[in-house]
Amino acid sequence: MMVFYNGKILDLENVAVSPFDRAFQFGDGVYEVIRYYPKIFFEYESHLDRLKSSLKKIEISFTAFEDVESVLYELIQKNNLEDQLSIAYIQISRGNQFPRRHFYNENLEPSIFICVEKYPAKVNEMKNGVRVGLEEDIRWMRCDIKTTSLLPNVLSKQRAIKNGLAEIIWHRNGFITEGTQTNVCFIENSELITPPLSNLILPGITRGIVLRLCEKLGIRFTERDIKLSELNVFDEILLLSTTAEVTPVIELDGNIINGRVPGSICKSLQSEYQKLYNTENR
Amino acid sequence: MMVFYNGKILDLENVAVSPFDRAFQFGDGVYEVIRYYPKIFFEYESHLDRLKSSLKKIEISFTAFEDVESVLYELIQKNNLEDQLSIAYIQISRGNQFPRRHFYNENLEPSIFICVEKYPAKVNEMKNGVRVGLEEDIRWMRCDIKTTSLLPNVLSKQRAIKNGLAEIIWHRNGFITEGTQTNVCFIENSELITPPLSNLILPGITRGIVLRLCEKLGIRFTERDIKLSELNVFDEILLLSTTAEVTPVIELDGNIINGRVPGSICKSLQSEYQKLYNTENR
Repeated sequence: MMVFYNGKILDLENVAVSPFDRAFQFGDGVYEVIRYYPKIFFEYESHLDRLKSSLKKIEISFTAFEDVESVLYELIQKNNLEDQLSIAYIQISRGNQFPRRHFYNENLEPSIFICVEKYPAKVNEMKNGVRVGLEEDIRWMRCDIKTTSLLPNVLSKQRAIKNGLAEIIWHRNGFITEGTQTNVCFIENSELITPPLSNLILPGITRGIVLRLCEKLGIRFTERDIKLSELNVFDEILLLSTTAEVTPVIELDGNIINGRVPGSICKSLQSEYQKLYNTENR
Repeated sequence: MMVFYNGKILDLENVAVSPFDRAFQFGDGVYEVIRYYPKIFFEYESHLDRLKSSLKKIEISFTAFEDVESVLYELIQKNNLEDQLSIAYIQISRGNQFPRRHFYNENLEPSIFICVEKYPAKVNEMKNGVRVGLEEDIRWMRCDIKTTSLLPNVLSKQRAIKNGLAEIIWHRNGFITEGTQTNVCFIENSELITPPLSNLILPGITRGIVLRLCEKLGIRFTERDIKLSELNVFDEILLLSTTAEVTPVIELDGNIINGRVPGSICKSLQSEYQKLYNTENR
């Protein structure tokens, strides 16, 4: 498998990350996952913008963005994925620092790692819906930054998988925040409701697209805080992410949603979302 | 520099961490820092116990502990540090997992990295005291786990250093928690007061030792919540950690403590602490 590491395309086996890379010792890095729908990286500019924003928020001064897009296509080609639904993973860490200190030298050279992976559409989940759990959101207060300090997400996601669930939806102080890898939105009386952007949720690319699709389709939508106690009133619940796209929730914390059937708003949004990347419609 | 990585002692240059190590991609690891006072690793068993506890809390199933202590001494020897005040860093990550997924395979082989570094005593700080800042504690709710998902600690510590401060003391919901790399305690009317162990602070090895020294020295002590509004009443403030040992705070958030002079309880504890590792007294 060919990957990109600090300026070179090389076999994964030949990548040697230093144990003094600050992502390894401190979770001191940021990342993006981008969908490759043959033959384009979908919403590349939005992901790049968010990556830049994450870097800025934690003051990592990486600047060599001009190479990234061409590297992505080169990796797709070198790994024979031109015709395969895939994803790219981009991680930038603050760089190597020796000796190990919590504080960092501001002149470190950031390190960048990029790989691609064949990643089919989650057809079954999108068509038939998924079961999800509920947990308290115990993460830090800067969930708007897409960092590699992901242990809270890892632990919640692991509990989901162990319990046969696809995802955990978090709540903090009685209000819904998001999932471990997804934003979440709710439908009530044909209106889409989703938590507003803040330090408590990731500004999802798919979330942004779905709100634009609502405008296009004439679906009313509101960004507002959602109480945990409201959950039983919703007609539909949707998970949004780069790989989940628009995925219906059919069971939340043991409660059946819409008779376990994906709802009509979900189907409209899925269909419209697919048009965005479907080659025939470009 | 000779280090230990997954069963081998080798030159740092020859360590090749995979970019799919979960510490690199997820901050999915735990660590310890242990003081080497020639010629012993101080409180080795306490650090080992805490390491095991951290591993258990996040369900990493590393078991090869019997080798660790001998590796530490071997690294000291191979790096010619037998007579040097030093530290050891031990990091265990959940292991390599490909492809990248938030959830983990329970059969992963954990990876272990150990290095040693010459690290002199912070004589000036301990003798003359340090200036520290105050910030809101925005970390996750499992600060009792010594994980490598350390970005919040990194960012606060960096602000401290940028402002010419030695450390940041955090408060959450109006109560003092701890520092970015230290526990904290306060002296009022010759009584030592420190926040109780909970999910909000790290169970510090030095903290435990200092409480035992209080008993030995007949210093009254209480573990209780400390309000931010109480800070102006304290006679002394102390930072505790493996490398800071017992360090007096002479200025907190711009307020002078004890006329910028380390207090008498501080000096008693420092002196007694030093006896614990001072060879003549073993």
